[in-house]
Amino acid sequence: MKRTSRDIRTANRYEVLRRIIARSPTSRQELAAATGLSLATVATLVGELLDLRMITEVGFEDSAGGRPRGLVAVHASGGALIGVDIAETYVRVELFDLALNVLARADEDVSPGESLPEQVVGHVAAAVGAVVARAGVGGARVLGVGVSVPGQVDRSTGLAAYAPNWDWHDVPLLDLLTEHITHPLYLDNPLRASAVAELWCGAARGRGDAVVVNLGTGVGAGLVLGGGLHRGVSNSAGEWGHTTIVLDGRPCRCGGRGCVEAYVGASGIMRTLRELGAGSGLLHPGDQTATLAALGRGLRERDPVALAVVRETVRYLAAGIANLVNLFDPEVVVLSSWVAAALGEPLLHEVREAVARHALHRPLAATEIVLSPIPTDPVCLGAATFALEGALRPVGRRTLQRAAPARRL
Amino acid sequence: MKRTSRDIRTANRYEVLRRIIARSPTSRQELAAATGLSLATVATLVGELLDLRMITEVGFEDSAGGRPRGLVAVHASGGALIGVDIAETYVRVELFDLALNVLARADEDVSPGESLPEQVVGHVAAAVGAVVARAGVGGARVLGVGVSVPGQVDRSTGLAAYAPNWDWHDVPLLDLLTEHITHPLYLDNPLRASAVAELWCGAARGRGDAVVVNLGTGVGAGLVLGGGLHRGVSNSAGEWGHTTIVLDGRPCRCGGRGCVEAYVGASGIMRTLRELGAGSGLLHPGDQTATLAALGRGLRERDPVALAVVRETVRYLAAGIANLVNLFDPEVVVLSSWVAAALGEPLLHEVREAVARHALHRPLAATEIVLSPIPTDPVCLGAATFALEGALRPVGRRTLQRAAPARRL
Ligand SMILES: [Zn+2]
Ligand SMILES: [Zn+2]
Repeated sequence: MKRTSRDIRTANRYEVLRRIIARSPTSRQELAAATGLSLATVATLVGELLDLRMITEVGFEDSAGGRPRGLVAVHASGGALIGVDIAETYVRVELFDLALNVLARADEDVSPGESLPEQVVGHVAAAVGAVVARAGVGGARVLGVGVSVPGQVDRSTGLAAYAPNWDWHDVPLLDLLTEHITHPLYLDNPLRASAVAELWCGAARGRGDAVVVNLGTGVGAGLVLGGGLHRGVSNSAGEWGHTTIVLDGRPCRCGGRGCVEAYVGASGIMRTLRELGAGSGLLHPGDQTATLAALGRGLRERDPVALAVVRETVRYLAAGIANLVNLFDPEVVVLSSWVAAALGEPLLHEVREAVARHALHRPLAATEIVLSPIPTDPVCLGAATFALEGALRPVGRRTLQRAAPARRL
Repeated sequence: MKRTSRDIRTANRYEVLRRIIARSPTSRQELAAATGLSLATVATLVGELLDLRMITEVGFEDSAGGRPRGLVAVHASGGALIGVDIAETYVRVELFDLALNVLARADEDVSPGESLPEQVVGHVAAAVGAVVARAGVGGARVLGVGVSVPGQVDRSTGLAAYAPNWDWHDVPLLDLLTEHITHPLYLDNPLRASAVAELWCGAARGRGDAVVVNLGTGVGAGLVLGGGLHRGVSNSAGEWGHTTIVLDGRPCRCGGRGCVEAYVGASGIMRTLRELGAGSGLLHPGDQTATLAALGRGLRERDPVALAVVRETVRYLAAGIANLVNLFDPEVVVLSSWVAAALGEPLLHEVREAVARHALHRPLAATEIVLSPIPTDPVCLGAATFALEGALRPVGRRTLQRAAPARRL
């Protein structure tokens, strides 16, 4: 373990900027109280953020009897950040200001035949060009582009190590992107993107330990531990979708059996719908989005088949979430991604009830389970915050991300 | 999240002392290289440890062409630490020097009728008195007493919040111990004790992320993440024993069904033995220790019933360990506690083979699975290191542990 003084200073920079974005204007004294850092440390970090032009001085406030306190605020127009969500059927790109507001958005459909890396990268490049043009920010203002790609990602080499849906193995994605995009690039996966999105702007803000449960086509958990992202030694942590919950149960696309994803991923839910209510009209064969939208409507209308499918799904989902509660003892569990959004409050209600039957009393009492409060695409937002974090790192390391990556044999 | 500058300095103190205990004598330059901290930071921390008399200056070594470098070593006789392992059938107490060598040991049997807190505390007090007398160190040299008690522990109030075997709920254990023991007391559970033991002296030393799998009567995982213990928000993290692995499976003593512990805890293994080989002579009814010892002998002698029972147990154990690998992506998984010791290398061999069939390729390739290398009771050692960590914390907070705890309603 090498957690260096530089790492700690970087983490503190993130924390101070997060607080300023959450609440602008604010004073150094408020920041010290909110972060637990000393006033001297906060003053140094604020000075660095001022030098980076990410924040600005915006005046003074009176303090009771003392000297007026200087106020700082995020310098929203001081730069732009781009977040790219490469999903299995689309590429979505959003451009943000430094206050993490969306200024422009572009979507590209990826058709089932377009599984070659070059094809996907072509869509990314087109959409990045589109958001820069639409926002009218000028390329020079873009501090970085964060890219989320499904599966496992090797950040040090820029490889998409394993993307199950396209059967990509060790695709040199960063190299390919570098041919089209000249801004600093930061590659990671949707689990970690949605976790940092919650950490910067959502339900994990100001929390030490949070688990962000991603419910989509793929399923996994983004882990915020000790106030920062837990990546694991090979950047593969959080593969909750492939933890066993029914030994020798349903086959899973990972090759295993009885994985959480086989029951609660979008395909697993569609399978349950075929088993419980094939003739109900809820099933849209081959179309996960339409099927989940129909299930969400059915839930709100108390359709018995929709209720039965969601209750059966929640049997597995709640046991899997209770496992996370018992293992991590987090302050909050956040349900994120498009399946959670499609099923919404009725899903949350069922999950809360069922988790209470599985989890141990003490960690259960200490946690809350919520839907992601982020109104836009959390993966784009999280990918953009990777670019923001990259811009906050001391110069010299940042450029590592941009250099042509070494190839693995 | 409030990770303050003081927390970081405390964590760095632990890290530097760990390195000195691992390798004495050593220089500030070596410590800086090993920890990634700056030489100035290391010099400050070494100065603090010298002031605390936990280390001493022991001379100089030549450095190529430069000034001779000062060497420091752990000051083994600078204090004593006591570790208490309250288990379900015994109390074991060990006294350590500051190099974490055992100087004295005392065991007390706890008979099945003695489940009252006062009775257990009586055994602890007797054994603590015995080790101080045997080691001849004098009470004044004892820097603290770490106490491990099974179940869930509220460190801020000193309560044994829930001890399943004795059905203890919110027992004011720290209060009761304070009536007999005047040294600073530090209360926690065996999961966390065995994890810090591996961190200070075992397979997790120098590692960022390690999972210590405790296999005993109870089952759980001690979590070392980011180079430190992950406790969770209510100090309940690591309840892997009560994660579901077979939805609706065997009943568990927690009230749930299909928990890992129901299959791989000592009682679960005895149940499997009754199912697969009741007449084999391996089963010692009502005696977990004798039964597991017989199974261990049977494994080494390739007894078919012993092999079948261990393979059936490993089906569940390996799926549970693969879940930990997929979730945490650790550098090392350590098998600890008495069931792991009783079954030893043959268990490890079966586990490694079976985990490889369940875990995802990338995190599996990045981790190793080992038996605990700690030759003595890891829970006593870990409990003693809690006392050592307490003595390393800045004065003012340490005394918090000793004050009469507040009662909960
Ligand atoms: Zn799977
Ligand atoms: Zn259980």
